[in-house]
Amino acid sequence: MRLSAADLDAGYALACQTVVESDLEIFVPPQEEITRHLTTEKTAAKVSIPFEYDWRVHQTIAKYFVEIEPPSLADNTDDLARLERELARSYDLRDVYAPLSVLRTLARTVRDAEWRVTVVIDRGSGRPRIVDVLPGDQTLSLYGAAVDIGTTTVTVYLVDLFTGEVVETAADYNGQIKRGEDVISRIVFASKGNGLVELQSLVVNTINKLVERVTLRRKTAGSVGIKSHEICKMTIVGNSTMMHILLGLPPEQIRLTPYITTINHPPTVGAHELNLNIHPQAPVDCLPGVASFMGADITAGVLSSGTHDADRVTLFLDIGTNGEMVFGTREWLVSCACSAGPAFEGAGVYHGMRATTGAIEEVYINQKTYEPTYRVIGGGKPRGLCGSGLISLIAEMFITGVTDKAGNINLTVPTPRVRTGEHGAEYVIAWANESDTGEDIVITKPDVDNLLRAKAAIYAGYVTLARSVGMTLKDVEQMLIGGSFGQYLNIEKAIEIGLLPDLPWERFHFLGNTAARGAYMALLRRDARDEVAAIAKKMTYLELAADNAFNDQFMAALFLPHTDMTQFPSVEKVLEGQEEK
Amino acid sequence: MRLSAADLDAGYALACQTVVESDLEIFVPPQEEITRHLTTEKTAAKVSIPFEYDWRVHQTIAKYFVEIEPPSLADNTDDLARLERELARSYDLRDVYAPLSVLRTLARTVRDAEWRVTVVIDRGSGRPRIVDVLPGDQTLSLYGAAVDIGTTTVTVYLVDLFTGEVVETAADYNGQIKRGEDVISRIVFASKGNGLVELQSLVVNTINKLVERVTLRRKTAGSVGIKSHEICKMTIVGNSTMMHILLGLPPEQIRLTPYITTINHPPTVGAHELNLNIHPQAPVDCLPGVASFMGADITAGVLSSGTHDADRVTLFLDIGTNGEMVFGTREWLVSCACSAGPAFEGAGVYHGMRATTGAIEEVYINQKTYEPTYRVIGGGKPRGLCGSGLISLIAEMFITGVTDKAGNINLTVPTPRVRTGEHGAEYVIAWANESDTGEDIVITKPDVDNLLRAKAAIYAGYVTLARSVGMTLKDVEQMLIGGSFGQYLNIEKAIEIGLLPDLPWERFHFLGNTAARGAYMALLRRDARDEVAAIAKKMTYLELAADNAFNDQFMAALFLPHTDMTQFPSVEKVLEGQEEK
Repeated sequence: MRLSAADLDAGYALACQTVVESDLEIFVPPQEEITRHLTTEKTAAKVSIPFEYDWRVHQTIAKYFVEIEPPSLADNTDDLARLERELARSYDLRDVYAPLSVLRTLARTVRDAEWRVTVVIDRGSGRPRIVDVLPGDQTLSLYGAAVDIGTTTVTVYLVDLFTGEVVETAADYNGQIKRGEDVISRIVFASKGNGLVELQSLVVNTINKLVERVTLRRKTAGSVGIKSHEICKMTIVGNSTMMHILLGLPPEQIRLTPYITTINHPPTVGAHELNLNIHPQAPVDCLPGVASFMGADITAGVLSSGTHDADRVTLFLDIGTNGEMVFGTREWLVSCACSAGPAFEGAGVYHGMRATTGAIEEVYINQKTYEPTYRVIGGGKPRGLCGSGLISLIAEMFITGVTDKAGNINLTVPTPRVRTGEHGAEYVIAWANESDTGEDIVITKPDVDNLLRAKAAIYAGYVTLARSVGMTLKDVEQMLIGGSFGQYLNIEKAIEIGLLPDLPWERFHFLGNTAARGAYMALLRRDARDEVAAIAKKMTYLELAADNAFNDQFMAALFLPHTDMTQFPSVEKVLEGQEEK
Repeated sequence: MRLSAADLDAGYALACQTVVESDLEIFVPPQEEITRHLTTEKTAAKVSIPFEYDWRVHQTIAKYFVEIEPPSLADNTDDLARLERELARSYDLRDVYAPLSVLRTLARTVRDAEWRVTVVIDRGSGRPRIVDVLPGDQTLSLYGAAVDIGTTTVTVYLVDLFTGEVVETAADYNGQIKRGEDVISRIVFASKGNGLVELQSLVVNTINKLVERVTLRRKTAGSVGIKSHEICKMTIVGNSTMMHILLGLPPEQIRLTPYITTINHPPTVGAHELNLNIHPQAPVDCLPGVASFMGADITAGVLSSGTHDADRVTLFLDIGTNGEMVFGTREWLVSCACSAGPAFEGAGVYHGMRATTGAIEEVYINQKTYEPTYRVIGGGKPRGLCGSGLISLIAEMFITGVTDKAGNINLTVPTPRVRTGEHGAEYVIAWANESDTGEDIVITKPDVDNLLRAKAAIYAGYVTLARSVGMTLKDVEQMLIGGSFGQYLNIEKAIEIGLLPDLPWERFHFLGNTAARGAYMALLRRDARDEVAAIAKKMTYLELAADNAFNDQFMAALFLPHTDMTQFPSVEKVLEGQEEK
């Protein structure tokens, strides 16, 4: 992206091309924030209950209305024991634990409410624990929240724990973004000075903001809006770095060989311990991960995608800033993570951008004229290319011969759109007069190389995983794709560049935000929660950094679509078709 | 007590006789504080281990040295799981819980210590819990503290949890005293504004001060002084009001009929939750009580006195600001509390004072001349009378006929020491020229009435308890007396005024601070801790406020020694002897 003369006059600068000579503060223009906000809200789609749910059977948290016998000189049992006696009598609930915060208001609450109270009890771990004692009968509603902390986007589902329905959703950029775009830069930031505390509070603020948004919007019979402390349980997923930072655990060992987390199975903590603005005593359950680069977002994704329970050989892929994948059936699961880098999020590409207003998301190139047509998110003038736009563009350039197998741009192609620019050979997708920025939108040779490396890492991952269990990609009976990225992906194009394996289209399934859905399932059902732990325990993790076979595969995949064309018969057919024309 | 002219000139005032017309601040002169300090230190005597103790068998907290296998690319198990694996392998310890605070420093600690660490683990309740992970081998020492929070005095024992020895003790006035001398005035203060928070922090400050004192004094092989955070476990006893305030639980219902506590069996909490300045994750175990006026100080006293395990019918008495008593054997226990008031601590008596320097602690009156001789604490001139001095004085006045059975002072006795003063009839114990205050030290009719009411309440308690199980005081085979008060008590005099039942002297045993010793036993031995809970559960509590029989007994006991002289045959003999002379 380049700045227009008007922007430059207005004092804007490109951070990536500006030398910082003293302390400075950076302001992101507000219209940019709003745009981002709007498009990310879209990604949190309406979720329906995908399974049987009866809160009495499946839920670990519940409300119990009790009428306690008032004390007398003849029966001077203490307040808590009276309450416990009634819980045992009416609900057969025994050995209940009451934290100090509950005890501190108990005497007043039971007397003000004339001994008729509603007890919120969590049975998620160990002894039943009193979360709160509320005056009167408040058993009409019970809320929980499922949270997916992505490196880029945080998503919150507000869930009615009686019906199991997601009643509101909201998503926004992770507030940590201003301290680094990817996991590694966050870890580096966390390791310095007060960095960890700052990052922790940034992500907590993002969650709190989203909690406020969903609670204020919640429509109930009488009114709009509930109080945030009505949320009595929260389940959280995210990659291991996000989980460490949320819990205030130093993440530096995650990026240092041999890549060790402090903990993969975090204990349930109280919301007040993390300053989460829900009920202070609400249990906050961070789901378990497997390794430094195989976090709870993936175990939750495996759960919600059903990979762990599949009859058929399944390849589950989640491409975000990293590319994590799991290969298996209900019998076995192997996994690995490829540091694909954020190229598919538009980073490291000259005119790359996120999938937001103004991004070219799809491109077609005319085989004869080499003229492109494209579709822009929001419908206006283009400002750059997002991940799906880049994949589609490179596929088209390859099929039409604008690039060769190695990604070299062919300067002999008869069109003014192919030319030599500042960064070497480039192809112009939009001329200055068509673009929103007033300058040509191009893709350069270094951009193509970046994208080739990203897709090669992911493809090498598939092959290495399959080989580790004595299989090839031909054995994949279904491929499940999670992550918001998948929603905009064109399978044909992705196969043509060698990002996806060459399988029949009906084997691909796009599942959306599998991590958030996994968190939601674990929030609702105790057995689903147990299953995530079982998945984390059962899943073998291949550390690719220690694997020479992966490097060989990576080198072989640094071509369009691959050195070994027998792995891409359908692409070979397309190329043959093109030549015949 | 009266102020000297010099004191009045210096601006001193008697709070009890001064009308407050606006906000004011009260300063207690420092010399008074120092005096108090010195004498209370005396009361925390050296304690030896009264039972078998092997920390490996009896202690719930322990240290484990582990050498953890460093991670590698081939074994990327997370830090906590590596530690857990080693604890299981070396010590068969499983399912260990690690709180966030431990996890937050784990990665750094294990690496800085090159994977050789000492783990402090508490197995006091539920899952084994990691209190701390310390670098290197630190298994040489392990400390705990037993605390007795009296309404007046707080006592701390520093205990070596490996040997079981009390290595240091310290005691001081409860900082809450400036907000009220007795339990009721503390409750009233706690119920207003920020009163509870203030009282909580006052008692915590007192404990922290004492902890600092004992830790700084602790002599070890290499040096003097340990760090307060080396204390990894604390056991606390106190009456129910003290426990409520410590835990931040509103105590107001304790003084309102039907006298209900929030909780009699408090949960174990972390030291950081109460701002106790020991290891922040140290478990703090507040022992269980029975009712609003039958607290953990008494259940702990029953434990350490062995009342709950007695072959013989036992009457256990703890006189402090209140008089609590327990009657029973190993088969059964009944208890009650008498609001004796603080008369025996010198309050509500014109020249009454605490058992500190200048207090007359023993008095003899010559049968012929009615001239007294007395002993003063500290050996100097007298300033007033403490509890034991008052008991001894009233007994002597009664035996010599200065008062009659009803406590009336006989103005016809031929001595200038009996006279009519400002408050009616009075007896002069020390003339102005013998006293430290430069004025006559007297006991007045209202003083005698106050003391009669106090002793009558206690005696009525004995009788009511005994009757509740179909017995009389003649059935008492041993009487155990706890509380610092007991240490200065003359049994003969106490029987003569009817404060103690008329039993052969060999049946009385003074045990000192039974509450603190009970806390110490529960700190050391898991089975002792369980026993306190069993005592609290098994002990029947008689609410005297609901008992007409008690009121009748109280009225009958408002005499010297009692209306029914058949209950005091030995006193009758003394009186007969006196008459013969």
